[in-house]
Amino acid sequence: MNRHHVLIDTHDEKGLVYKVSKLFFEHDLNIISNNEFVDKEKDKFFMRSVVSGDIDPTVLHQELTELLSQQAHIKITSPLQKKRIVLLVTKESHCLGDILMRYEAGELNTTIVGILSNYENLRSLVERFEIPFYAVSHEGLSRDAHEEAIIKILHTFGTLDYIVLAKYMRILTPRFVQAFQDRILNIHHSFLPAFIGANPYKQAFERGVKIIGATAHFVNNDLDEGPIITQSTVGIDHTYSWKSMQRAGRDVEKIVLSQALKLALDDKIFVYDNKTVIL
Amino acid sequence: MNRHHVLIDTHDEKGLVYKVSKLFFEHDLNIISNNEFVDKEKDKFFMRSVVSGDIDPTVLHQELTELLSQQAHIKITSPLQKKRIVLLVTKESHCLGDILMRYEAGELNTTIVGILSNYENLRSLVERFEIPFYAVSHEGLSRDAHEEAIIKILHTFGTLDYIVLAKYMRILTPRFVQAFQDRILNIHHSFLPAFIGANPYKQAFERGVKIIGATAHFVNNDLDEGPIITQSTVGIDHTYSWKSMQRAGRDVEKIVLSQALKLALDDKIFVYDNKTVIL
Amino acid sequence: MNRHHVLIDTHDEKGLVYKVSKLFFEHDLNIISNNEFVDKEKDKFFMRSVVSGDIDPTVLHQELTELLSQQAHIKITSPLQKKRIVLLVTKESHCLGDILMRYEAGELNTTIVGILSNYENLRSLVERFEIPFYAVSHEGLSRDAHEEAIIKILHTFGTLDYIVLAKYMRILTPRFVQAFQDRILNIHHSFLPAFIGANPYKQAFERGVKIIGATAHFVNNDLDEGPIITQSTVGIDHTYSWKSMQRAGRDVEKIVLSQALKLALDDKIFVYDNKTVIL
Amino acid sequence: MNRHHVLIDTHDEKGLVYKVSKLFFEHDLNIISNNEFVDKEKDKFFMRSVVSGDIDPTVLHQELTELLSQQAHIKITSPLQKKRIVLLVTKESHCLGDILMRYEAGELNTTIVGILSNYENLRSLVERFEIPFYAVSHEGLSRDAHEEAIIKILHTFGTLDYIVLAKYMRILTPRFVQAFQDRILNIHHSFLPAFIGANPYKQAFERGVKIIGATAHFVNNDLDEGPIITQSTVGIDHTYSWKSMQRAGRDVEKIVLSQALKLALDDKIFVYDNKTVIL
Repeated sequence: MNRHHVLIDTHDEKGLVYKVSKLFFEHDLNIISNNEFVDKEKDKFFMRSVVSGDIDPTVLHQELTELLSQQAHIKITSPLQKKRIVLLVTKESHCLGDILMRYEAGELNTTIVGILSNYENLRSLVERFEIPFYAVSHEGLSRDAHEEAIIKILHTFGTLDYIVLAKYMRILTPRFVQAFQDRILNIHHSFLPAFIGANPYKQAFERGVKIIGATAHFVNNDLDEGPIITQSTVGIDHTYSWKSMQRAGRDVEKIVLSQALKLALDDKIFVYDNKTVIL
Repeated sequence: MNRHHVLIDTHDEKGLVYKVSKLFFEHDLNIISNNEFVDKEKDKFFMRSVVSGDIDPTVLHQELTELLSQQAHIKITSPLQKKRIVLLVTKESHCLGDILMRYEAGELNTTIVGILSNYENLRSLVERFEIPFYAVSHEGLSRDAHEEAIIKILHTFGTLDYIVLAKYMRILTPRFVQAFQDRILNIHHSFLPAFIGANPYKQAFERGVKIIGATAHFVNNDLDEGPIITQSTVGIDHTYSWKSMQRAGRDVEKIVLSQALKLALDDKIFVYDNKTVIL
Repeated sequence: MNRHHVLIDTHDEKGLVYKVSKLFFEHDLNIISNNEFVDKEKDKFFMRSVVSGDIDPTVLHQELTELLSQQAHIKITSPLQKKRIVLLVTKESHCLGDILMRYEAGELNTTIVGILSNYENLRSLVERFEIPFYAVSHEGLSRDAHEEAIIKILHTFGTLDYIVLAKYMRILTPRFVQAFQDRILNIHHSFLPAFIGANPYKQAFERGVKIIGATAHFVNNDLDEGPIITQSTVGIDHTYSWKSMQRAGRDVEKIVLSQALKLALDDKIFVYDNKTVIL
Repeated sequence: MNRHHVLIDTHDEKGLVYKVSKLFFEHDLNIISNNEFVDKEKDKFFMRSVVSGDIDPTVLHQELTELLSQQAHIKITSPLQKKRIVLLVTKESHCLGDILMRYEAGELNTTIVGILSNYENLRSLVERFEIPFYAVSHEGLSRDAHEEAIIKILHTFGTLDYIVLAKYMRILTPRFVQAFQDRILNIHHSFLPAFIGANPYKQAFERGVKIIGATAHFVNNDLDEGPIITQSTVGIDHTYSWKSMQRAGRDVEKIVLSQALKLALDDKIFVYDNKTVIL
């Protein structure tokens, strides 16, 4: 039996669960799991249902559209259809490697269509996994020209569901970000909003913190200000140099990014009001 | 507007969410929050809704009873009606003190009708909070006779929603436990099922563990084998004696027990199959 | 046998451990524990030894002074001599209550000589523990005049080892802070340096973080910028309002502050370069 | 300048730090870091120093031997000399993959001389990293005969510092274990001593725990009873099947094992009394 992920977000109103579950019932759909969240302050309703049954998703989408108010967002996806993603990396391998290993083990419901970098360093690693690798050096190029070259390659991949910045150390232009609104995942190597910007471990070392962390978030125009998906922290002490903070941080970064990626691939994330709701 | 906590657990079947949400809709009830869980393996359905509206809970209970299959459990409670609880303690004050402080601050939706101990030690502390304290020494009494004396006092309190063993270091008889099925909360000073029984910190020290923990659970007849509600852990190292493990453990114990108590008082716990579902 | 806590910080140089341990050896002192840390970058040496033996601490202090370079800091304290502390509070009771309960249980090697507040609210709670309570309202007073009134009371207590701001919601003047350099502990209700300033839970809510935290630190002139002693975090999700973030945060705050206080009372904290070394 | 890791464990006696630091001082050695621990109950002294200077380690070893009592254990190693290790795996790739990625990134001070498995599954992955892979099927072989075949291959590698069981799902014989006393690292997929033996996630699921964990330990003759090196835990809830507990557990397992391996490679672990001291 086919499974469908049904995601609805809309203004809150009385009877939404009733209406939607009635529709599922009338179509003889089996509810595998069902989660709702209501933001009372903003009057927003979120619902994620996994249903199985013999229904054309286009029909289901249309009936939900008729049922709900015009401003409702409805998304229906099939877990059988693998999401297509691209990774952008620079020189560090820990986040990339963690994703590659999960990919190899079949943990991620995705096809990695390509990996791009502004350096050649990670080519050998990537190519062992038989994934196309593209190095586009930024040397001698303006930010715009370099990004243009990146985008040109991205266009050759066809449809992309997500772009994952797996320690890509270049800032994207607003144009790029807008083109992939809520579809670019980034890992920031600090517990945001602490230590925004460059060299967060150095900043953390200078400040003498006793905990370090990492944050996976969607990218928006303001640096490190996009909707947070996952965060985690780990305790440190005075014996840590900023280099060893960086080393300890890598383990947090890779787990946090891979968890965020998995949530995205499993259609579990709603974005609104610069926050995420995860159902 | 009155709020009601509606808890349903029953065999899973198609259309349950639809049926229940329809009933809410027809009674013009506003759904504040709604959570469901289906255990596919055991075919069990759990639902906790917080609704507000102008309805007699007895009527709502009856209509749900008619709507659902005979074996369904339906519980409707009002957050306005404070749960009545009793604490049993021995000599240690950290769990008791944590509950007293939250109680004083109005964090717990409960009335502590009395505190019993097999020692006098904690009388002074308890009486500062103007809660009746009863010391029933076990000295010279059989287990049954001592428990009989405890029960006699409990009976004077009228209806009790929960009994909280806040470091009560005596084992209860099956008779006692059965009389308060799924209503006795206990804190075990280890990460169960590791270190069942007496002196878990000594056991943990002997084993050389690098983490210690605590477990809040409902009590059943088998020592430390009841349904787990909350658990937490904290890292330790080789410098810890079992005494300092005990000291570090206290902070985990008190938080874990208070969190479990809060879940119980807020009607968030379902018990089945010797496990808990927390919605 | 008398125990002594010996704390040394000085410029690093070859042979420091040798020189100090030789002195201990020659005085037939038994080393209970010994911890060193060298900050190679800043060329700073830190050592904390717990020794037992029959020695006059004044003699030991003098011999260490002769042994080490002039700029060395040497501190010798006796665990038998309880530190004298004062708590400053406003209206919230969770940090105060946690300290009171530990105090009552004999966990803290201290005498609480008094508790001051700018409100009357906590008088009843404090007085149950037979600790003098002083309410000094800030209403109608300038910041300076209010602080003056606080200081006047502090002066009546005699020597003070530490002042603990257990959710004291007033900003201290530089004059006050300088008078108690590295002896004022504060709890900030966020994971510093995130959310400096007022209402950190509201800030955290607005930012949509997935983790909240608390930070205990010494106070210096810049708000929330002093040396960090302890930090801890706890995971949250989209279902948390800022009020429930605040509630969850309280458990972290009280544990973090009490742990920092215990470290201070046990002479385990060195302050330098706006950081702490904890041995 | 050459660095040396100096590890000493011996009966505790007065003046040990003095004696050893005197020797370092006389040889004009610079102490990079110095850590001691005394187990007062067992009268055991542990010391790990990192020293730099111009000394022949054989000379240093001999002088320490003369200085200390006969039963002292003294170990001097050079961080320049990479430890030689072998990994044993079965079918799961997450722990292996994590080690391979760190190895590739130069994070581990080791040479992986070979990887053995009782299956062919992981050959392709391993060979991409240009490490010899040996599959020795256990099919149709007695436990002894299979192990004999493994040992035969191990002997071809020359000296081995550590054997890492990176999810090797076969039980080793006492003979094998004794031949590599305190040099076999294992990852157990539970928070030991909870859920010893097979299928710990199934056991944890049945028990309804709210936290799962992983334990890296040295192997001794009793299954899952050897000295614990590192442990970590992660929170779960009622929505986890044992399959999703297993999936969540993998992230803990791989980090815990890699951290334990790093501690071993950096000569930071002392083993005694079936425990570890980590300095």
